[in-house]
Amino acid sequence: MRTWSFVKGHGTRNDFVVLKDRSAMMRLTQADVRFLCDRRGGIGGDGVLRAVKAEHVPEWTGDPDLWFMDYRNADGSIAEMCGNGLRVFVRALLDCDLVPVGPVPIATRAGVRIATPLNDGRIMITMGPVTGFPEPVPVRVAGRDLTGTQVAVGNPHCVVVLSPAEVDAIDLSHQPEVPADRYPAGANVEFAARVGDGHYRMRVHERGVGETESCGTGAVAVAYALSEGRVAQSRVDVPGGSLEVLLDDDGTARLVGPAVIVARGDVALPD
Amino acid sequence: MRTWSFVKGHGTRNDFVVLKDRSAMMRLTQADVRFLCDRRGGIGGDGVLRAVKAEHVPEWTGDPDLWFMDYRNADGSIAEMCGNGLRVFVRALLDCDLVPVGPVPIATRAGVRIATPLNDGRIMITMGPVTGFPEPVPVRVAGRDLTGTQVAVGNPHCVVVLSPAEVDAIDLSHQPEVPADRYPAGANVEFAARVGDGHYRMRVHERGVGETESCGTGAVAVAYALSEGRVAQSRVDVPGGSLEVLLDDDGTARLVGPAVIVARGDVALPD
Repeated sequence: MRTWSFVKGHGTRNDFVVLKDRSAMMRLTQADVRFLCDRRGGIGGDGVLRAVKAEHVPEWTGDPDLWFMDYRNADGSIAEMCGNGLRVFVRALLDCDLVPVGPVPIATRAGVRIATPLNDGRIMITMGPVTGFPEPVPVRVAGRDLTGTQVAVGNPHCVVVLSPAEVDAIDLSHQPEVPADRYPAGANVEFAARVGDGHYRMRVHERGVGETESCGTGAVAVAYALSEGRVAQSRVDVPGGSLEVLLDDDGTARLVGPAVIVARGDVALPD
Repeated sequence: MRTWSFVKGHGTRNDFVVLKDRSAMMRLTQADVRFLCDRRGGIGGDGVLRAVKAEHVPEWTGDPDLWFMDYRNADGSIAEMCGNGLRVFVRALLDCDLVPVGPVPIATRAGVRIATPLNDGRIMITMGPVTGFPEPVPVRVAGRDLTGTQVAVGNPHCVVVLSPAEVDAIDLSHQPEVPADRYPAGANVEFAARVGDGHYRMRVHERGVGETESCGTGAVAVAYALSEGRVAQSRVDVPGGSLEVLLDDDGTARLVGPAVIVARGDVALPD
């Protein structure tokens, strides 16, 4: 039996097990990740975030002194980036005094992201470039034919604008259908409504997962589609909480949201 | 913010957050229980098991020196007893050296239960009297009309015997229907098959919950129904693992199963 220290936290109810592994001493197998994310037999989480110094990551060619976020999905597979996860990751490092309280660059498989803790307890992160496509997308969901907007935020999104009541009512128990020629790798599909000036509400169906309570890149896509790509500061309410999206004049986005550490302790992994 | 120490463990994937509170110093509210059992925003579990000395429990009239298992459901409501929970409770006390390694009486809202750690790591607990009713019960599930056996194990059960393939295939996404005159408070319904000599397999639909991966009293009911109430030692496989049921000649049962502590640490509760 191996015993590891862990931190558990969530950002808008997207939850993670964080492991500190500065010198890459852990042998974290796919089975370990599945165990840690198992909500009954383990700790439970949408993924594992391993904190390791970038110098120990063979594929990393940038600054070796950064912290690298080694993000794994609950099924053990490797993932590139997760906005909600990055906030929890930085909160865990801050709580352990491993990064200064100020803008801090974090190495991820999608490149360097800058995380900035705000005075109100939220964390702001840079999300990279956002690209919209003008051609409307036909979307079929729960027997209805709708029209969406294609937005790329590192990953592919399709934003369908509805009324607030329609967003609440729509059945997301099945994967919405989008055209394969527009989305060869599938899409995350957001159903969004304007509820005020620069204030939106959304629900999301994530490809391969189903409906989730939050999606950081999805919130960026919604803010982009509903502000029509203009420089804007938007509030996007997701089922798990509230996010803020800043669309900058250089075509990139920043995402602001909560990051809460719930528990810390030791976990016993089976051999 | 309050910070409490906790232990998380499971018995056949029925999982619990255990709190040590010898002198009843914790003010454990319904909201606290819901937070602790929240699988994304908290730690996650089917319930909370608070360990308190019985002398501090006003309604307890027995030996004041016992440990009392204050069991709460995930929704914050008070519950009487849970066989899988009691094993995890005793394992947590053993790990902290709070009870001797031998038969130990535990106070519960259903009375005193005796827990005995076995050499193989499992824990045996006394389950109280088991009563069968000869009159067959009509059960309707997923459009099929079946027949079950009524068994009381402190709580009401209905055991439907099928072939192993039928047990695997049956759709338990809806509550099976049992006659209200036989079950005024509803029933836990088990679908069970004989897979060997004294070896059974079951799936269970728990009233008010849905299909679960394990049910200790349900395993007792299945062993009772399939051994026709005779003195017997049975193995009952549930989706979450394997249990052993001993039916004794005094009409009571003992339940043997695993109890695994996965993690221990500190949790920060919101104010």
